Order: sequence, then structure tokens, then C-alpha cells
Amino acid sequence: TLGVSFPSGGQAEVLVWAPKAELVELTLNEGNTIIPLKKQDLGYWHLVTGEIKPGDTYKYRINEEQEYPDPASLSQPESVHGPSQAVDVARFKWTDDNWQNLPLEDYVLYELHVGTFTEDGTFAGLEEKLDYLKELGVNAIEIMPVAQFPGDRNWGYDGVFPFATQNSYGGPKGLQKLVDACHAKGLAVVLDVVYNHLGPEGNYLGVYGHYFTDKYNTPWGPALNFDDAWCDGVRRYFTENLLMWFRDFHIDAVRMDAVHAIKDFSPNHILREMKQHVNQLLQETGRPHYMIVELDLNDTRFINPLEEQGYGMDGQWIDEFHHALRVTMTGEQTGYYSDFSGISHLAKAYRDAYVFDGQFSEHRKKTFGIKAENNPGKQFVVFTQNHDHVGNRMLGERLGELVSFEMQKLAAGAVILSPYLPMLWMGEEYAEPHPFQYFVSHTDPDLAEAVRKGRKAEFADFHAEGEAPDPMAEETFNNSKLQWDLIGKEPHQTLFKYYQTLLRLRRELPALKNLDRKAVEAEADEATKTLVLR
Amino acid sequence: TLGVSFPSGGQAEVLVWAPKAELVELTLNEGNTIIPLKKQDLGYWHLVTGEIKPGDTYKYRINEEQEYPDPASLSQPESVHGPSQAVDVARFKWTDDNWQNLPLEDYVLYELHVGTFTEDGTFAGLEEKLDYLKELGVNAIEIMPVAQFPGDRNWGYDGVFPFATQNSYGGPKGLQKLVDACHAKGLAVVLDVVYNHLGPEGNYLGVYGHYFTDKYNTPWGPALNFDDAWCDGVRRYFTENLLMWFRDFHIDAVRMDAVHAIKDFSPNHILREMKQHVNQLLQETGRPHYMIVELDLNDTRFINPLEEQGYGMDGQWIDEFHHALRVTMTGEQTGYYSDFSGISHLAKAYRDAYVFDGQFSEHRKKTFGIKAENNPGKQFVVFTQNHDHVGNRMLGERLGELVSFEMQKLAAGAVILSPYLPMLWMGEEYAEPHPFQYFVSHTDPDLAEAVRKGRKAEFADFHAEGEAPDPMAEETFNNSKLQWDLIGKEPHQTLFKYYQTLLRLRRELPALKNLDRKAVEAEADEATKTLVLR
Repeated sequence: TLGVSFPSGGQAEVLVWAPKAELVELTLNEGNTIIPLKKQDLGYWHLVTGEIKPGDTYKYRINEEQEYPDPASLSQPESVHGPSQAVDVARFKWTDDNWQNLPLEDYVLYELHVGTFTEDGTFAGLEEKLDYLKELGVNAIEIMPVAQFPGDRNWGYDGVFPFATQNSYGGPKGLQKLVDACHAKGLAVVLDVVYNHLGPEGNYLGVYGHYFTDKYNTPWGPALNFDDAWCDGVRRYFTENLLMWFRDFHIDAVRMDAVHAIKDFSPNHILREMKQHVNQLLQETGRPHYMIVELDLNDTRFINPLEEQGYGMDGQWIDEFHHALRVTMTGEQTGYYSDFSGISHLAKAYRDAYVFDGQFSEHRKKTFGIKAENNPGKQFVVFTQNHDHVGNRMLGERLGELVSFEMQKLAAGAVILSPYLPMLWMGEEYAEPHPFQYFVSHTDPDLAEAVRKGRKAEFADFHAEGEAPDPMAEETFNNSKLQWDLIGKEPHQTLFKYYQTLLRLRRELPALKNLDRKAVEAEADEATKTLVLR
Repeated sequence: TLGVSFPSGGQAEVLVWAPKAELVELTLNEGNTIIPLKKQDLGYWHLVTGEIKPGDTYKYRINEEQEYPDPASLSQPESVHGPSQAVDVARFKWTDDNWQNLPLEDYVLYELHVGTFTEDGTFAGLEEKLDYLKELGVNAIEIMPVAQFPGDRNWGYDGVFPFATQNSYGGPKGLQKLVDACHAKGLAVVLDVVYNHLGPEGNYLGVYGHYFTDKYNTPWGPALNFDDAWCDGVRRYFTENLLMWFRDFHIDAVRMDAVHAIKDFSPNHILREMKQHVNQLLQETGRPHYMIVELDLNDTRFINPLEEQGYGMDGQWIDEFHHALRVTMTGEQTGYYSDFSGISHLAKAYRDAYVFDGQFSEHRKKTFGIKAENNPGKQFVVFTQNHDHVGNRMLGERLGELVSFEMQKLAAGAVILSPYLPMLWMGEEYAEPHPFQYFVSHTDPDLAEAVRKGRKAEFADFHAEGEAPDPMAEETFNNSKLQWDLIGKEPHQTLFKYYQTLLRLRRELPALKNLDRKAVEAEADEATKTLVLR
């Protein structure tokens, strides 16, 4: 296992992939102890030692020069630039032996951001709200990324330690405790993981190895190296990360961020290889784990079974369902909404999952997508909004701020009674009026300024007017928090009960949870703006 | 059809993809006539006119400013910077109605470079040698690329007009005449086509449309755009090109250059899409055409059938067979040869086609390849050398200059009696002593100098000593020509007869042409350096 682990007994095992290094030493507790690692094949450095105990902090010293935190650190108590901390993940006393992951087709998801879901902004705070979520009627919480990022405020996509659980949320033990509590209440836990890029601050991976390649250019700079020279180490790194969440944190499913930005021309795509490992884990433990991908490609190769040369992903988000629904409601035509014309596209999304499955897309300026004919409804996750559609607006308005109360109810029905897996976005169930804005807490001032500017530039396409909130301001973060006291008040309470009822109906009436797409008929009438779903 | 064509009657049809242009005009015969084209959807510009006749020269004037040759030009009588020439490819009087392409499993290939194959360096010169090739016993000539390049001397990989047949070789009619003559003699024609990059001089495509994308970086700069915005036009351009060679030039098969450098993450890979079109053409004409790829990936996805989600390529070159054979003979360990250890790798190549099918490659610094278990022998082309292994040496020495006479015979046997499709490289059959060196005739002086320098730098890895021949010198080109008068002399004549006999044996003895890989056993003994093939 990469990182510091305690496989058995008192000895720690230390393993780091550092093919670029000439010498790697472990420096313990602020440099009081320095132990050299032994070079192995393929750039790995290894050590078995009794010197390091759980709770100790450490760094790696490279070439007897600078010290850096561990790329596979489990804990960064002083955030991204500080030392790593040894954690024995096996010490946690799990009480979920009787927990069984839900069948995928039963998933009703609830996406949330730990930092803004509660006032507290921690796993512990979230744990106190599990009864509320049960009462609402969802059965799987989907947690935005928890990999360590700089500061306390971040959506999670700027994580730079994929193995370390964000310190300000409660660290690895906090997450284990949360998952255990979820399982005790019959809730599955979906974790959002980011394998397509690393954040811009505190990313020390390049010091150790060839984690990046300039073969591909991505919106975030050079791509993570999944198929160029030295890719084996990178592939192992992320594969171990995935297996860790499932094995050591009892995570039930992952939502994998923007997998279209994982550039891999290998014969065995990294997602496919990961799935093969997950299947192996299933054989060992008997516990199934799902892999759901965010995918901006209408390409069934990702979700087709391994036997059919697919990558074997269990499901994917379909933004196009959202876009069609959204344009039907609001008539928006900016940015990617320009490709959607309303209710007939929504009918197509009900019928075919992919709206573009071989047509020319004016927005993309190319023919886009293929048909998803043989993929069941349980492979598609739908929503009236998610963190992106809300937070990537300049002012971060939730749908509730943009459409009428009655329209919100209609939208909820369209999603919750769809032949797909419905996902709610925190707060939509009671029409939370607070926005969900873009916020960061970078500690590098130049970067902070660049983010401020970049954010403004991004809105050229979508919103021409008004001032963008300052992503660095704590106020922006605080303004994005849910206001729990509203739920008892009107009209929030009415909407909450409406959601509750819809979710109960989906659970109780088989006709409203039909995931057999072949049995679904959807017809739109543009003139009357009606859609008939059978 | 892209370009200028004469579908029927006297009217010409003109079609150019120029989405970047505001106005496109056809300027005829040095600008005496100027006719505007009509804008169509998706960036196409169209015209039907009686003004342009076969033989006329033309350019396109963009935005009433500069004039450029046609991206789909069929003929560039004054080379890459001059005007395009209208050609009616349907005028050629074919005499090959009775020709039937050979079954792929019967192919015995002979790779040649038109410019250096004969003193003349033209299609007409080559035509005079067809009897010689028949006598030798090959049945398919594979012609290095003929797309128009700058000057008279080039391997062909610097072509910038994929549709135009090199003027100095004899132009489009010359090629048609050659193919007709080949078919009359029972020879199939394989054409090397380059769809992964364009040459550095005379490439005007960027003026017209988004032919390139900066999403990917290749050794030749930004990649051709097969999957980014505006890719539809690029995909059509190359697909039409492929179909043109098959339909209008009766080419029997293509060898597609370095398809691993065709970067395409579309759900339907461009090669797969091309194959679907070629299948359609087969249905229309009843004539099969093969697609054979040069592929520096051991990835069966390229050569698996469409039904199995493959790209449906008929075959691929296997350089690894060559490398294993070469290292067995010479013990070379520079560059990519460093991954090969001799006779046991050769045995593996006989058994498994791919030498690396899941092992770590020290040269590539990654685990490489997957197993080719279900692909028949006819899908793999093998050789003792090809233009690359000879020409990419600093001095361009053929194998015959590097190993003994007896070893050449052994090598020939290893290839010709292999369970794969054998390919000879021009001149090897009589041990031509002339090298095949790298030569160009760029007319841009800066580029010429850059090529000179680049060529020298490239040899850091392979050859430390001696002076690289000047690629721009006509002498380098002339030195690379075959010396036909040698064939009657010894030891050349003996080797020629040896090749003749081997090729006859392959034709006549079924046991020596067994392409059923499951029936092949290959065992190596490192100690005695012997290989037993059954």
C-alpha cells in the first residue's frame, strides 16, 4: 500500500513512488528522526520501521534537500503545505457489519457539500442531519470531494492529496464515523472523487514522479499521466485511492468527476482497469461498490459492461436531461443551454437518455453522441440542478430563485418520477433561498487573485450584468450555507412535504420507479408545452 | 465531393470546406475569371459552373484578399505553393474490369519508394519494373506516400495535399495508369496514406478551417482535429480522401501511417467510421479494399471487427517482430531495440504476434500491450526491414550492409515463411548496397535548415559517430536509388534467386503459408540460438 500503513503488529510500512528522486528519507516529527528509504524497482521507495506511530507527523526529504508531504498522505493536520500524519485506518471500530449496499436501481441520491450543508461545516455536523435526510426519503448521500485542499473553504475540486480527508471537515476518522452512522441509518454513501486533475495549490506530486504529461492539454493545464511513459505509477496511485475509499472507509459508491478529462489511449482504459480491481474486491469482501461517472460525452463505451469492451462504469450523470428540463422551464439560451429547445428535447431525454445521439450540436460545433440503446435506466442519474448548475452561475442562484414555486414542484416530479436515478441538490427540497456560490480559500495570494479574475472572465458567456461575488471572501462561503430554520416556515415546509410525498410514492408505487427504459413512452407537444410519460 | 469534380455533363461542381472564411471565390487561370462560391451550412462553400474545365488551374480567394490552392486539390502542377489543377478522374479508361483484389491472406508485399525505385523516379519508371516484381514472386506493391510534397525529393510523409498525386511522379493520371498496369499483371496496389499530420511546408489548411486542435500535442505539433469542435469537416475530408483512392484510383489497400498519432476520443473512432464507409463502398461496387495500419500500440481494438467494438482494420504492421529478429541478428541495443533480447522474443513474436502484451517495457517506461489472442495471422505484416529501419539510421544502411550474406538469407526465410504476411523492402531481394537515406527538397530555406539540424539531433540516441548526410542535397537522394545493373551480378543474383525460391515455396507449399496462428508452435533455445517453428 502506498503511504504509511500499519499492516499488522507495531511496525509501519512506508511506500512512496518517487522515480525522480535520487534519495528519499522519512523525516519524523519535525525532523527529529531521519530514516532513509530503500530504493525498489520502478521508482518505488520502501521502508519497514517501528519508529513511526499513528498520529506522528512526517515528510519525505528528497535528495537531502527539501522536505515535502506524502503524495499518499491520509491526513494533513496543518493543511496542504504542512507535514503528513500517519493514520492507522484499520483502527476504526466499524459497527456496520450488517450493512448491505442498496441495489443501484433503488438509489435516490442527495448531493451535498460538507462545508455549507450545516453551520458547523463538518462531518459531525452532517451526522446530526441524517435523521432529517431519512425523513425526507432519500437513501444515498453524495458528498462533494473531501480530498485535502488549501484552507477551509472549497467546493473540493482543488484537492491536492487524494488520499487525505480534509482536516477542517474532521479528517479520516471523522469520515469513517460518518459513514458508519449513515450505514446504521440505512443510508448509502457516495463520494465524489477527482481523478482528472489536481488543484493549483499544494500540489507536490511533480517533485516525486511523472504524474503529468504534456501529451494532452486540459482546462487545468497538463493532463494527469495515464498513458505516457511512467504511467504505471500514476495508474496505481489512483487505483489504490479508489480501493481505499471502498475498503477502508466503507464508501458505497463513487461519483467520479469529469472522466472525459481523463485522457487515456491505453488498450485498457484506467476506468476499465479500476473496475476490474473493484470486481476483485467484491470477490474478496462480498460487498458491491458502484462507480458512477460525470461524463460530458454521450458515449456508451464508458457504461457498457467489461464483456462488451466497455469500461464497466455502473452509471453516469446525464446533464442533458437537466439542460432539456431547465430550458423547458426557463427558456435560457446562453452557453450550453443554446443547444436545447425545451419540451421535445425533454421527451427525448426520457426516451433515449442522451438528447444528442448523433446530431450536430451548434454549441459544440460537431456531431455529438451515439445511441444508448441497451443501457438500463439505473445507469443514468438525473437532477433538476446540481452544484454546477447552481454554483457556476455568477450569483449562484438555486433553481428556486429562478422559477415559480409551482414550477419547482413540477421539476421535482419530472426528476423523482423519471425512469432514472433521481438526485437532489441540498436545500432544493425546501427551496433554500441562499445561493451556492463559488468559494475558495487559497493561501497563495497570486493564485487567489488569479481565481478572482478567472471567475469574472468565465461569465462573459452566461451573465453580462452585475458583480461576481469574491470567491476568496469568507462571506461568500457563509452566504452559501443552508438555513435550517426555514424548513419549519412557509412556503418551505409545503415544498418539503411535497418532496417527501413524491419520494414516498416513488418508493411505494412500482409504476413510478420503472427503470426499464423500453417500457417508457414519452411524447411532447410543443404547442401546449405538455409532455406525456407512460 | 470535395474539390473540383465533373459529376456528369460539362458542368463542374466545386466544394470547399472553409468555415473560417467570410467569402470564398474561385479564381481561374491566373485570375482571369473570378466566381464567388455560395455559402452552405457547416462552413461549406459550393458552386456549379461551366467555367472550369479539366486542365484549368485555379485557386480560392479568401475574403477578397489572398489566394490559396485547394485543400482537396487533385493536382499541383507547380508543386505546393502553386495553383491547383482541375482533373476529371473519371476520364481515365480503365482496363481492369476483370481484376479481383487478392484475398488478404495471399498478400506478399513489396514496399517501394517511387522516387528512388528507378533512375527515372516516376510511376512510368516503376511500370517498367512490374515484370521484374512478378518474376520475383511478390503480388502486392506498397507505394510510399504520393500526396503532393514540396520539391521532387521526399519520402512522402511531408505531403500537404492529401488528394493530389505528386506532380514529379506523374500526377493523378500517372498513378491511374500504373494501377491499371499492375492489375493487368495480377499485382495488387497498396498505397501509404498519412492521416496523422501534414507536412511543414505548403500546408494552407489552417486558412480554411479548424483542421488542427491544440487539445493534443504530437511530434509534429498540434494534432489533426478528429474530435474537437469543427471536427466533422476534418473527418469528412480524410474519409473522402480514403474513398477516393479506392474508388477513383482502384487502389486495393491502404497502409495508414502511424495511426496511433490519430488522436480521437469520439465514440466512433475515425478509423472505425472510415471502415464503415469502406464497407458501404464494397456493397456498392463488390470490390473489397483493405485497411492496414502502422500502429505503435499493441492494441487489438484497432484490428478487431466492428461487431466486437473494434475499429475493424484488416491488419497492422508488427514492428516488434522486426525488432526481435533484428536484435537476434545484430545484437543492437540502442533506442527501441533495447527492449528486445533476441531469439526468445522472436519465438514470442511467432507465437503471439505482439512481443509486449502486458509486460513492463524498459524503453517505454510503462507496461505495454495486451494479448492478441483472437487475431489471425493474416492481420499482421512482417519484414526484415522497411523504409524506417533503414532510412532512420544516420547513414541509411540497409540490412544487407550490416549482416552477412548468409544471415540475410536466414532473415528472408524467417519472414517469408512466417505465419504472417511478409513484406519486402525494395532492393533487399538482391542485397542492394546503396543506402536509403533521409532526403527532402523543401523550398523554404529556414525549414530546410531546421530539418538539417533536427536530423542530426535525432541521432544522439542511435549513432554517435560520423556525419549525417545532408537531407537537402540531391546527392543524398541519388545515392538512395536502386542500382538495377547489380541484379545480374554476384552475389546479388544468388540472393535474388534465393528470394524467388522462397516466395515460390510459400506459394506452393501450404505448410509454409499457414496463417492459422493456433497451429503454429515456436520454441527458442537461447543457448544454441536456435528457433524451432512448427
